[in-house]
Amino acid sequence: MSAPNLKSRPAVDRAAELGTKIIERRELWAELPSDRARTFTRAGVDAFAERGFHGTNLRRIADGTGLSTAALYVHFASKEDLLFEICRSGFEVTEEIVGEATAIADPAEALMVLMYAFTAWQAQHHTTARVVYYESEALTPEHGAELLKIRSRVEHRVRETIQSGIDQGTFMPGAVGGTGAALLSLGVDVARWYGPHAPYTPDQLGRLYCTLGARIVGIADAA
Amino acid sequence: MSAPNLKSRPAVDRAAELGTKIIERRELWAELPSDRARTFTRAGVDAFAERGFHGTNLRRIADGTGLSTAALYVHFASKEDLLFEICRSGFEVTEEIVGEATAIADPAEALMVLMYAFTAWQAQHHTTARVVYYESEALTPEHGAELLKIRSRVEHRVRETIQSGIDQGTFMPGAVGGTGAALLSLGVDVARWYGPHAPYTPDQLGRLYCTLGARIVGIADAA
Repeated sequence: MSAPNLKSRPAVDRAAELGTKIIERRELWAELPSDRARTFTRAGVDAFAERGFHGTNLRRIADGTGLSTAALYVHFASKEDLLFEICRSGFEVTEEIVGEATAIADPAEALMVLMYAFTAWQAQHHTTARVVYYESEALTPEHGAELLKIRSRVEHRVRETIQSGIDQGTFMPGAVGGTGAALLSLGVDVARWYGPHAPYTPDQLGRLYCTLGARIVGIADAA
Repeated sequence: MSAPNLKSRPAVDRAAELGTKIIERRELWAELPSDRARTFTRAGVDAFAERGFHGTNLRRIADGTGLSTAALYVHFASKEDLLFEICRSGFEVTEEIVGEATAIADPAEALMVLMYAFTAWQAQHHTTARVVYYESEALTPEHGAELLKIRSRVEHRVRETIQSGIDQGTFMPGAVGGTGAALLSLGVDVARWYGPHAPYTPDQLGRLYCTLGARIVGIADAA
């Protein structure tokens, strides 16, 4: 049985090392065509995080960059379009992180790397993550449906990993869907409570949630 | 050692029974002076949940009730005042649930009752909970500080329970603050993803998260 012993540091150390490599390769808004488009996107994140989607407008966002509203319209047709770009990129990075972690053959290692990488990423990018998760309800139904597709694929990958762990006898049997929701909730909710005064660095929190995630699926019990 | 055996149903059954009693006694906005004030509060929850705090106004909220904006002003001086009432009541119910659960002498039972009751409550009241947790950043600094005081007391109670469990040897030693944050995140994030189409009733989710919470603090390992 390949279940890591939680009392030995190396399992968490190794998950942290692999997880760090995964998030280091990720970049938000990498596919945008110019630095100017990225400047507007960052200003949009700050404005939406501070006042919510409905509480701000494109002019206010442009003003914050020192560029014109007309320049902003070159890249984004509407405020909703800008929000969608932010959310889509955020969801895609989550999918990449989850996809790369769950591609690891051993379910225990996959789960621990996933918990480390997703948690540490959310802590590093907590302002963006807050907009991605808490403002996305303001999107049009079509855009919302696109995000939902990504979210469903992410949840599916997490459930597959849990199921493999159960099938191999490494994880404790249990409600796969609800357990997956719980694991993702730990990382998602980091966006709500984490900030510059949090008593953990993103790496420390990633390591802790890696351990707690392993306990949630019952790796320690199976070991 | 009084740690419950997670493989035996009775520990979760008992936590669900005690937790249900705790949440059945709770009522949102019980201290409001009239049914009319409660009508406005419920309309406020719906409006804020749908469009966010900055995206709505008192007139729209009053229109939704069939009552006048003037009648609304009798009870709430401003939109912010209405949001504060919603959030304060929500935070106070959380504090009551956590307070009653953590008053149970045995830390393992306290933790399991807490996880059941908080999770089931959040699922039952997911729309209100969404406003309470995700719109409270729109409050004035003074009102925000009042909520922060309640939140700090809640986190303190959860940490105390974890620490007692560790001291008694029932819970695995670990980072008490981060573990407490993780336990609360499970319940808080229910407000984001739970809805009428969720594949679990509030009771089923409460039981599942009661089990996962026990695993997080390592009760099963200690047993």
